[in-house]
Amino acid sequence: MRRIAVDGMGGDFAPQEIVAGAIEAALKLKDEEIILVGNPKKIKGLIAFGDFPSNLKIHPASEIISMEAHPFSAVRLKRNSSLVKGIRLIKQGEADAFVSAGNTGAVVIASILHLGRITNIDRPGIAALLPFSEKGVVLIDVGATVDCNQLNLWQFALMGTIFTRKILAYSSPRIGILNIGKEKEKGNKLTKSTFKLLEPTTLNFQGNCEPEDLISGKFEVVIADGFTGNICLKAMEDIYKLVIGEIKKTCNSSFKAKTGGLLLKSFFREIKEKYDPDQFGGMPLLGVNAPVIIAHGRSKKEAIKNAILQAEKMLEVDVASLIEKGLRS
Amino acid sequence: MRRIAVDGMGGDFAPQEIVAGAIEAALKLKDEEIILVGNPKKIKGLIAFGDFPSNLKIHPASEIISMEAHPFSAVRLKRNSSLVKGIRLIKQGEADAFVSAGNTGAVVIASILHLGRITNIDRPGIAALLPFSEKGVVLIDVGATVDCNQLNLWQFALMGTIFTRKILAYSSPRIGILNIGKEKEKGNKLTKSTFKLLEPTTLNFQGNCEPEDLISGKFEVVIADGFTGNICLKAMEDIYKLVIGEIKKTCNSSFKAKTGGLLLKSFFREIKEKYDPDQFGGMPLLGVNAPVIIAHGRSKKEAIKNAILQAEKMLEVDVASLIEKGLRS
Repeated sequence: MRRIAVDGMGGDFAPQEIVAGAIEAALKLKDEEIILVGNPKKIKGLIAFGDFPSNLKIHPASEIISMEAHPFSAVRLKRNSSLVKGIRLIKQGEADAFVSAGNTGAVVIASILHLGRITNIDRPGIAALLPFSEKGVVLIDVGATVDCNQLNLWQFALMGTIFTRKILAYSSPRIGILNIGKEKEKGNKLTKSTFKLLEPTTLNFQGNCEPEDLISGKFEVVIADGFTGNICLKAMEDIYKLVIGEIKKTCNSSFKAKTGGLLLKSFFREIKEKYDPDQFGGMPLLGVNAPVIIAHGRSKKEAIKNAILQAEKMLEVDVASLIEKGLRS
Repeated sequence: MRRIAVDGMGGDFAPQEIVAGAIEAALKLKDEEIILVGNPKKIKGLIAFGDFPSNLKIHPASEIISMEAHPFSAVRLKRNSSLVKGIRLIKQGEADAFVSAGNTGAVVIASILHLGRITNIDRPGIAALLPFSEKGVVLIDVGATVDCNQLNLWQFALMGTIFTRKILAYSSPRIGILNIGKEKEKGNKLTKSTFKLLEPTTLNFQGNCEPEDLISGKFEVVIADGFTGNICLKAMEDIYKLVIGEIKKTCNSSFKAKTGGLLLKSFFREIKEKYDPDQFGGMPLLGVNAPVIIAHGRSKKEAIKNAILQAEKMLEVDVASLIEKGLRS
């Protein structure tokens, strides 16, 4: 039986949507245990009598780390928060994986501190799954390690390869470096030295990846320092939201537009669903000694359920051990 | 009389669209001189007899620097290219400004080499004008200087301020650092040290700017190292193109969708025009001793005309001298 701890109090829609997602996951993963960490009274208050799955447990935590809190001080000072207690459950042998839609920086720091890094991994990376091909494209790192050297990026490539092979079933994921040009000599000091480092390795390194190549699905694993990866991810998400928002506004602007919008409604929904990040669940934090899934702050029920299912899958194939072995070979 | 040299052979649609744009600009700027640099035979062949404005000149150049050429070696080896000769016209006192839709890297290098940097400016920056407010938001740098220190970013802030005040008529442009979080302590080493450097200055520095703040118009000048700025710009452009493309495809997918698309056509065009980068012309390369405007590689007639008008405006207010003075005060 695998035990997945879930941060019941982290996220824009906590605890309601977290609890709802955890229940759905518990009903689906009958052989596993889901541990909701948080205020027991509040959590119980959200579950109707008789709807409590037998494999759903509650672990009490009295504090909450807010989305805006400074990660370092929050992790140090709020040791009774749902976030820190949930991660510590793994350390104490009471859970095997952790899922949170809370403060990303705090999840990263608490994971490094309490779970530790995988041997020979210098810095962890958050792997975002982008909806640009059927099974997704992994962009790593999107914010765990903002100042990187070429060794960090090489380790991201290795972890991303193992993740996409084992979890997404890509046989030989193509690796690219997120860059401002396709040619070898393009880029900044970091991308140029990373190119030189990756070229002679046995990894399936295919060269530089411009944002357009990320979208067109020329690569399955794209590596970047956490600063650049985060800016790229947010720029894409925000422009997507802007355009979808403009279209919505337009389709309400006049009778003619409303009629057109009505006719196109189902088609627009298809486009929206195609690029909906929620379908993929959360983003695994790769490089620490247990599966940790970071769900989007605005995660609702469905996204939380998917993040928990993803944690279970990562436990099943034991990604952390595979990364450690991959580094030894 | 101001003289603006135009790279007649640079860009995806050169020379046709460049020549067409130069003619339109020449008709509009009757008191100025437009110098098309390139193959005289090809250029003349594109202009119908009698349609040659008297203030349009041709300056011969036998070579072309391709869009894919390696910037350093191209500038060094192709001294007779339209790009290098056009920039050298300024050095020789035969022109006052330069416009090119050609190889961006080559324009930057040739400008540094032949025009020189403004005194006390260490590195130039390309200022992209983003369509997120009525008069635009300036993102500097989007690719001239990929490895930056905090002094470079401070100089970008200063140049961006002068440009937006004098060319866009913002009275006190708000400056932000492109970053992965809003709080002071967020970001990488570069953004954190830049924050500390800008805070005590007299510039209107307003803090960190996430991609969403770029879009919402909270800042008029957003500074970034050229690598991050370029990735952000391309990520935004490419997602925009993706969504617009998906909608076009959808509106052709069935009779019902076609009818809806037809009803919404004029509204979609409005959205497209609102975010059309061509309306702003090109991107000035700030920090060199004369106005140099880099137009998008895919520029057509309208974009080229606007880039030439922009060069004229920069000459009129003498941005380069203002930057030099701004640094002295």
